[in-house]
Amino acid sequence: MLVFLNGKFVPEAEALVSVFDRSFLYGDGLFETIRVSHGVPFRWPQHLERLRQGSEFLKIAVPFGFEELRGFAERLIAENGLAEAILRLGLSRGKGVRGYSPKGADHPFLVMTLHPAPESDPQQPARWHLVTSSIRLLANERLSSLKTCNKLAQIMARTEADALNAQEAILLNTDGYVVEGASSNLFWIDKNTVVTPPLASGILPGITRSVIFELCDRLKVPCREANITPDRIVSCDGILLSLASLGVVEAIRLDDQPLRQSPVTAQLIEAYRALVDSETRAQCR
Amino acid sequence: MLVFLNGKFVPEAEALVSVFDRSFLYGDGLFETIRVSHGVPFRWPQHLERLRQGSEFLKIAVPFGFEELRGFAERLIAENGLAEAILRLGLSRGKGVRGYSPKGADHPFLVMTLHPAPESDPQQPARWHLVTSSIRLLANERLSSLKTCNKLAQIMARTEADALNAQEAILLNTDGYVVEGASSNLFWIDKNTVVTPPLASGILPGITRSVIFELCDRLKVPCREANITPDRIVSCDGILLSLASLGVVEAIRLDDQPLRQSPVTAQLIEAYRALVDSETRAQCR
Repeated sequence: MLVFLNGKFVPEAEALVSVFDRSFLYGDGLFETIRVSHGVPFRWPQHLERLRQGSEFLKIAVPFGFEELRGFAERLIAENGLAEAILRLGLSRGKGVRGYSPKGADHPFLVMTLHPAPESDPQQPARWHLVTSSIRLLANERLSSLKTCNKLAQIMARTEADALNAQEAILLNTDGYVVEGASSNLFWIDKNTVVTPPLASGILPGITRSVIFELCDRLKVPCREANITPDRIVSCDGILLSLASLGVVEAIRLDDQPLRQSPVTAQLIEAYRALVDSETRAQCR
Repeated sequence: MLVFLNGKFVPEAEALVSVFDRSFLYGDGLFETIRVSHGVPFRWPQHLERLRQGSEFLKIAVPFGFEELRGFAERLIAENGLAEAILRLGLSRGKGVRGYSPKGADHPFLVMTLHPAPESDPQQPARWHLVTSSIRLLANERLSSLKTCNKLAQIMARTEADALNAQEAILLNTDGYVVEGASSNLFWIDKNTVVTPPLASGILPGITRSVIFELCDRLKVPCREANITPDRIVSCDGILLSLASLGVVEAIRLDDQPLRQSPVTAQLIEAYRALVDSETRAQCR
């Protein structure tokens, strides 16, 4: 597989970065995970806009124009011959002097890698067991709302899920609300309304999360933001998770509790899949 | 400068790591910063014990024995001819599959780099201006007590200090207490007692911090742990910071407030310098 390495296309084995790179040293960087279908990155502008916001906050200049990057991404997809894929775009602050101060680190480093899309069978959609993680997220913290390369909280949460043979961990924030999955946004069904925690709860503003709002609008399903406690979420009418790589996923168990399943979830799973398919097909050259 | 790269000694320009390394992707690793004096790493066993505790929690195996590593560190110091230095030891979980789960990532990657010691003149010790950071730390969080490669909170805090021409930022935790510096532990003087926040406040258990306890004992200066609020710390009898690279540093200003200076701080600065000098000289072969 070829890798886009800050302007060059190189084989995986040559895709190397300095051990003085600040993303290696401190996780001082940002990333995006983008679904590619029909050779087209789904919602490229939204992902790049989120990257832009993060890079503005962290003061890391993006070393290529967004249209130029899109050209590189398309070439990466074409040269690897992988039309159904996950594209990972990583932006590091690059090399600097020892220590936390980013002073003088002004050669950012951008990497794009391509990964086979996870296998999925529309007839047998994934159904996840969830566990409640012991790791908490900071509510109202600007840094938590960015897709940064500081992911140990999520890694430890995911490790807790792995240990119990669950597919995802859900995390509480410092206010005591259940707010997101380790690698997904969290939604629940309350009667026929789709509900998700507000951005201020300390979550990542998922691109797939925002697409679910669009789909609810289109399907005339009411959708709103609210906070929920762990004891209340188990008795809701359904839980679903959203993430770029897999789209919408239904949860069927949380810790030791079986979860209700809602027809609304099935509708969203199908609507999301259809949207990715039609939108990328339409953009495919 | 030569770099120790997971078993090999290579020139800086060849000290490279895969872009699929999890410390580059997610900050999935740990590090130690160790003062080297007279060619000897000061308090090597304590640093390696902290690394061991972190690696146990994150479940990253240290790929070399501690005595073997010490041999590599001594060779790195000797070959670079840098007897007064800062040694950085970084441990990454290594390459894995895409995503947060560490499953299958079982080839950890260990790097040691050497950096010239910061210049310091015993006649003119550093005196820092501090700023209060807007970034908060999670109290009572196990992850915050490890020296992990997730350092964006500290980087952003340090950026706030840089912007105001201050040398260090101090951070509050989610309980509202002032708990540590971006790259240092925090102490204040209350009459003639040296006080520092307890470990449960969400701070890093600094090796230099623990040496200060020893020195207080030796100097017969009372020393204890306590919490302090931002409004109370400005009126204390002195603030000092501790960190491996510089030892003990006195603060003379916090935000817009000048700080009192205590003879106890001067005593600790001198006692720490003398201890590093005598202890490493005694171990020097």
